[in-house]
Amino acid sequence: MLFHVRMDVNLPQTMPENQATALKKTEKDIAQGLQESGKWRHLWRIAGQYANISVFDVSSVDELHTLISTLPLFPYMQIQIMPLCRHPSSIRSNDA
Amino acid sequence: MLFHVRMDVNLPQTMPENQATALKKTEKDIAQGLQESGKWRHLWRIAGQYANISVFDVSSVDELHTLISTLPLFPYMQIQIMPLCRHPSSIRSNDA
Amino acid sequence: MLFHVRMDVNLPQTMPENQATALKKTEKDIAQGLQESGKWRHLWRIAGQYANISVFDVSSVDELHTLISTLPLFPYMQIQIMPLCRHPSSIRSNDA
Amino acid sequence: MLFHVRMDVNLPQTMPENQATALKKTEKDIAQGLQESGKWRHLWRIAGQYANISVFDVSSVDELHTLISTLPLFPYMQIQIMPLCRHPSSIRSNDA
Amino acid sequence: MLFHVRMDVNLPQTMPENQATALKKTEKDIAQGLQESGKWRHLWRIAGQYANISVFDVSSVDELHTLISTLPLFPYMQIQIMPLCRHPSSIRSNDA
Amino acid sequence: MLFHVRMDVNLPQTMPENQATALKKTEKDIAQGLQESGKWRHLWRIAGQYANISVFDVSSVDELHTLISTLPLFPYMQIQIMPLCRHPSSIRSNDA
Amino acid sequence: MLFHVRMDVNLPQTMPENQATALKKTEKDIAQGLQESGKWRHLWRIAGQYANISVFDVSSVDELHTLISTLPLFPYMQIQIMPLCRHPSSIRSNDA
Amino acid sequence: MLFHVRMDVNLPQTMPENQATALKKTEKDIAQGLQESGKWRHLWRIAGQYANISVFDVSSVDELHTLISTLPLFPYMQIQIMPLCRHPSSIRSNDA
Amino acid sequence: MLFHVRMDVNLPQTMPENQATALKKTEKDIAQGLQESGKWRHLWRIAGQYANISVFDVSSVDELHTLISTLPLFPYMQIQIMPLCRHPSSIRSNDA
Amino acid sequence: MLFHVRMDVNLPQTMPENQATALKKTEKDIAQGLQESGKWRHLWRIAGQYANISVFDVSSVDELHTLISTLPLFPYMQIQIMPLCRHPSSIRSNDA
Repeated sequence: MLFHVRMDVNLPQTMPENQATALKKTEKDIAQGLQESGKWRHLWRIAGQYANISVFDVSSVDELHTLISTLPLFPYMQIQIMPLCRHPSSIRSNDA
Repeated sequence: MLFHVRMDVNLPQTMPENQATALKKTEKDIAQGLQESGKWRHLWRIAGQYANISVFDVSSVDELHTLISTLPLFPYMQIQIMPLCRHPSSIRSNDA
Repeated sequence: MLFHVRMDVNLPQTMPENQATALKKTEKDIAQGLQESGKWRHLWRIAGQYANISVFDVSSVDELHTLISTLPLFPYMQIQIMPLCRHPSSIRSNDA
Repeated sequence: MLFHVRMDVNLPQTMPENQATALKKTEKDIAQGLQESGKWRHLWRIAGQYANISVFDVSSVDELHTLISTLPLFPYMQIQIMPLCRHPSSIRSNDA
Repeated sequence: MLFHVRMDVNLPQTMPENQATALKKTEKDIAQGLQESGKWRHLWRIAGQYANISVFDVSSVDELHTLISTLPLFPYMQIQIMPLCRHPSSIRSNDA
Repeated sequence: MLFHVRMDVNLPQTMPENQATALKKTEKDIAQGLQESGKWRHLWRIAGQYANISVFDVSSVDELHTLISTLPLFPYMQIQIMPLCRHPSSIRSNDA
Repeated sequence: MLFHVRMDVNLPQTMPENQATALKKTEKDIAQGLQESGKWRHLWRIAGQYANISVFDVSSVDELHTLISTLPLFPYMQIQIMPLCRHPSSIRSNDA
Repeated sequence: MLFHVRMDVNLPQTMPENQATALKKTEKDIAQGLQESGKWRHLWRIAGQYANISVFDVSSVDELHTLISTLPLFPYMQIQIMPLCRHPSSIRSNDA
Repeated sequence: MLFHVRMDVNLPQTMPENQATALKKTEKDIAQGLQESGKWRHLWRIAGQYANISVFDVSSVDELHTLISTLPLFPYMQIQIMPLCRHPSSIRSNDA
Repeated sequence: MLFHVRMDVNLPQTMPENQATALKKTEKDIAQGLQESGKWRHLWRIAGQYANISVFDVSSVDELHTLISTLPLFPYMQIQIMPLCRHPSSIRSNDA
């Protein structure tokens, strides 16, 4: 089941740089693990923003919430979620 | 080059049904042709909305505008465009 | 899987009264059938609005979209959907 | 009498972790007591948000305000309230 | 129980003048009856707007919805409702 | 002359508790004095909010501004003002 | 007493041209009469908009509402009103 | 050439009082000088707000920007600017 | 003097096609004449929108308003104007 | 390929003045280098705002993102991007 997720990151300017670097490193590792597992199906940077557009492929809403709310940057992100479904005009096997 | 496009369709309630059907049929044919050509890379329905989320892969902004503004439903759609770029944490070859 | 849905109905003032009555009658029948089947778990009127708050219990996003987009009033409704999940402080068996 | 309540929690990033943990523990205890008493009828987590959707069943607006404004997290929450009433198409005895 | 209600009226410009006049006359009669009964406690015009601010005193949300949704101008009004309660600094007996 | 005023209070979380208590005490005393004088005609709490709806009865806009801007909580409040006038359907002598 | 008023005019595209011309002519006559009387103290066009910024000088809110709501274009205008008062740094006698 | 300017002032609550007092004093001196020179043509307080409505009369946009951006309170103000022009219904010589 | 203008065009769907074509032809002729004269300095299409971003170079606000409000599509356009001035970091002679 | 960019700068009030001065100096140097190279085609100050309107001419979205996200003020700016394309009515060779 697919969900469209937009994440806007907003690290506090008072956060020490090494803490920020460590957080981003862990975030990247987790994000890449989830991509490998197929759960995090797409990940793009929005140009000019510290934000991304993602598509998650999960088996339940609870799984989606667990994945997102345990990301290290979650406390510093604003999240918007839209459930997606197959478009009747789509011919692409990997959009279902 | 990737662009994230949201299209909200709003056909006037006074449009005759056969005209609406014909428009949608042509739209579908064009959308499928563009998917086959690789220009319209992703196409999802937003659940509960007469709207879609799409990702286009074009070689220029002018090409993007031409593709979208010549869709048969263009006069009845509200369009939002965001340029996308590769995310530094992405490991998926097909997200670039 | 639970989804929170808000539906705002806006019938065109030019719609003949018997057509409106027929549409609402069919809508009611379908809504009651879906409640009986357990798919439409909650249904409340928002005070002072021609709008409702609903909770759907479906097995997939596609099922949710199909249920909502085939309602007779769908062309006249504005729909907002939020995926819900179990709250860690909830003790109610019927909120999962 | 039913009220639809959305609560968005926003703890200050400067709050010491043990204070946050204590606040959440007390909040949870109170929330569960109110659920047991039937005052807090439904409680769901909104996916991807530190926020919940709740339905309260109270005998007056003053009671509703007292319940909400004495929650330990109240100073850190943004609250939206909508009065609900029985929907004419509802067949569920527990939605009144 | 008190509710703060804002009503913005928007009659369609195509409505025949005698129909508009009749609707407003009936609306006024009902509004005055509800004021006499004490249900419609306050009624003010917002300066420069075809809109009013009202305070209703009802025994339930269902009663509030019934009063408002049966007003003749209801199909042409946008309604916003906020539940009110006694303010701890109020000394006015008629604000409870 | 009547003015509808909404006040949303937002005390900084860093304010010492005794300072907050003192401010609120003075605010309450002034608010009650203005109610006794008839200048502050109505005062209600919005349910679930640290906010109030008030109606002021003043002889000029300058008087209104002076009353509001000298409240002890003024630096911490967001204020919205709408001028009110008598509604043609009102039958209540105390709404003019 | 001064009030800042913004008026956005939106004549329906179906209004016959001679009706529009007549409405605007009457509106202009009334506006000029009110300027001569001193009630309509300032009147500017907002560049690029069919809209104006005005300052009214009236003795009560009821007078303001009567003046505005009897303008011939009132049914076709969106109105925003803000009460003004003397600024402590103002040295201009005609801004009070 | 006339420009309509709204300035909302928002001094940080951590600013020492003597610094705030000094800033306001300098601001007032400059504002009065600009009024005397005719550049700052009108200045009103918006009732209930720490904000003003002003009309500037300048010979260029660059001059307008220089005047506003060198005000002592500029770093603490939110500014909105609208170019004004003569209204065809205006009869006031001092509104051009 | 430079002004940034955004124009969103919204032709009514009931306008006969030959009328629309004629309007656009006249609009284009005037727009090109103003570009040749240097008054309309820049003109771009916003991708995916029936809208443009323009920069006008005029000697007064009145001239700007006259140019824009006499465009044939003016009654069907939503206009947003922002005054521009030279940026201190600009090195381009044609941006002043 | 052209992109319309609006940048609103918001330096934290706690930033030491010499740090702010140094940041702005580096920003200016980079901005001028990009103008010389032709990548940053236009740069204007919005009157009354600490904000600019820019037009970038880049060969890809990735290049645009790299240019903007490496600006020294990027962490303190809010960025809005719109892709532009040639307008069919444009006659200016330098708007393509």
